[in-house]
Amino acid sequence: MIPLNENLFRLKPSAIRRFTAMAKDVPDCVMLTLGEPDLCTPQEVKDAAIAALKDDQTHYAPNQGTAALRQAIADYETRRGMVTSPDQVLATVGATEALSTAMEGILNPGDQVIVLTPAYPLYESLATLAGCKTVKIDISRDGFRLTRQALDAAITDKTRAIVLNSPNNPTGTVPDAESLRNLKDAILGKPIWLVCDNVYSQLSYGNVPDITLDPELAPQRILCQSFSKPYAMTGWRIGYLTAPLQVTEKLLLLHAARVSCLPTFVQSACLAALKWDTRETVELYRSRRDYVLARLEGMDLPCPRPEGAFYVFPDIRKYGMDSETFCTRMIREAAVAAVPGSCFGAEGFLRLSYCCSMERLKTGLDRMEQFLKTL
Amino acid sequence: MIPLNENLFRLKPSAIRRFTAMAKDVPDCVMLTLGEPDLCTPQEVKDAAIAALKDDQTHYAPNQGTAALRQAIADYETRRGMVTSPDQVLATVGATEALSTAMEGILNPGDQVIVLTPAYPLYESLATLAGCKTVKIDISRDGFRLTRQALDAAITDKTRAIVLNSPNNPTGTVPDAESLRNLKDAILGKPIWLVCDNVYSQLSYGNVPDITLDPELAPQRILCQSFSKPYAMTGWRIGYLTAPLQVTEKLLLLHAARVSCLPTFVQSACLAALKWDTRETVELYRSRRDYVLARLEGMDLPCPRPEGAFYVFPDIRKYGMDSETFCTRMIREAAVAAVPGSCFGAEGFLRLSYCCSMERLKTGLDRMEQFLKTL
Repeated sequence: MIPLNENLFRLKPSAIRRFTAMAKDVPDCVMLTLGEPDLCTPQEVKDAAIAALKDDQTHYAPNQGTAALRQAIADYETRRGMVTSPDQVLATVGATEALSTAMEGILNPGDQVIVLTPAYPLYESLATLAGCKTVKIDISRDGFRLTRQALDAAITDKTRAIVLNSPNNPTGTVPDAESLRNLKDAILGKPIWLVCDNVYSQLSYGNVPDITLDPELAPQRILCQSFSKPYAMTGWRIGYLTAPLQVTEKLLLLHAARVSCLPTFVQSACLAALKWDTRETVELYRSRRDYVLARLEGMDLPCPRPEGAFYVFPDIRKYGMDSETFCTRMIREAAVAAVPGSCFGAEGFLRLSYCCSMERLKTGLDRMEQFLKTL
Repeated sequence: MIPLNENLFRLKPSAIRRFTAMAKDVPDCVMLTLGEPDLCTPQEVKDAAIAALKDDQTHYAPNQGTAALRQAIADYETRRGMVTSPDQVLATVGATEALSTAMEGILNPGDQVIVLTPAYPLYESLATLAGCKTVKIDISRDGFRLTRQALDAAITDKTRAIVLNSPNNPTGTVPDAESLRNLKDAILGKPIWLVCDNVYSQLSYGNVPDITLDPELAPQRILCQSFSKPYAMTGWRIGYLTAPLQVTEKLLLLHAARVSCLPTFVQSACLAALKWDTRETVELYRSRRDYVLARLEGMDLPCPRPEGAFYVFPDIRKYGMDSETFCTRMIREAAVAAVPGSCFGAEGFLRLSYCCSMERLKTGLDRMEQFLKTL
């Protein structure tokens, strides 16, 4: 075959997909593997898209996003405490394109990127595509806290970015104030970008610490956000990034060359999404989280307390098998599917998603409880 | 500022955008600069999207595209003579993402990419982002034909790809059979990818030669296609690429890391688009083309004959000024806007688009005719 880009051959295949496929082969398997809301998009948002289509909003939008959407996003971010101008906002194909534009836009081959594990595998893939090395800090060993010691050991002259995902996928945890202070002290004023993946921030159970609200870090921070999770819009493919103005201007060039712009009528629908009240959704996920945590406690499985997102990450080390073996057996022997912690760089854990009905969740956890008794 | 990716600083700013902005500042300026249909998306396509939204097709789609859409695209391509399986198809964010995935997915830093000028500037931008050099063959000097001599002079050991855009933006021309034979002879069996940008192929005025129908080149060919132009869906952001199976599998990894997937309901709408009859649209553009060519002949401006797309590319060399000066003066003195040939790497020409009503086209060409008399 004619050569292809060499970095493509360094990408790791997605184990999450492999496990999902394995589970789908088992009849009536309860899938606690999903990373998207089971809810459908709110009617108001769908109605806004339909109205925009009827209004023939079917022509090119500006590369950076429509003026109306960028203004609404800037207002939204400013209201929650991160002062933002519309010119700093770039509408992207979900948080995925926000992250890829941010990371590939700031990195040069040979740079190092720090990722706190357990972590969503995309960050490492994007670093690999940029010809960079990922340096991992395994915070599962430190009670899901980020110590200054761990940071100092990881940061080198080649460190160009650190990715922070809060609330975290796969744990649902939020770094505490001390972890964030350690992070800030380690990078403030240094030539290191802070890439914040905040896609679960609207699905937080309370007033959690958020480093994107710290103005001192603004000159070196890129926020990546999505409409997918809070508004159940995963299949709409829209999100955004915000960065210092001169950085957004440069990242816009990359975005324009790679995807041009976002669908016009989808951007109109997002205006309706930003007006939609997520409180009921958050309460729904909170009640599921509380139920899952109670059940895991009943199974005597230790688990860091999720403050957001829709995942729990129980510790299964006491069963003395690796997480891939555990999950394979649980699918085959109990017809309930979870994702091995190893997929996120943390052996000895499982990710369970509660993106399903309470009834289905109960069935899945009942089966899991029975399965544990057989071990 | 903290360093960014160095290739971003090598991108050239878009002169097309600068000229469009200049023209927008002139009241009632006739914009013959647009690169998108003035028509709106067919009702059937909008209806299909609305039905899909009402059906809650708002969840993630498969990374590669829905099975139904990939099957419909494979059928469409096979029917027109390019045998394609659904597994070879990757749904993309317009042809822009098809081209960026193709080019960044095959290139490594230091490779060379051959582009035939005049050309859409995106190809050079994508080569630059991949850390590659663009080698240009200016076919405007050879009567818009591609000679074996020019190819042999351009191809080196570092040549990894050649981009062919037919029908061409900005000229509307289609390389003749001899040009395509020269191209095939020069690259067949060599480690050189042929990247075919066919976004205007459904807007061809007759049965024109098409290198994507040659099965011998299939192992080294990547086709990039869009729903934008034939179905007036520029603002929907959907297209696709097809490649040899193993290549699609690798390019899928790049696509998944950068944008994840395409909107689910948009993919459903594309099924309706593929059933839509473009003949009336083609006849509309043909009548405009014939009108524009007749008017240019009346102005005594030589112009290669467009066989497709919606552009003409008249030669203005006899006026003894560069195309940027010519276009700036025409905007300011005659309130009609065209894009300088220099934006496409061909000095001494203009690109006029006929994506506007016949009435507006007449006004624009009347003004241009008056302007020429003042020179």
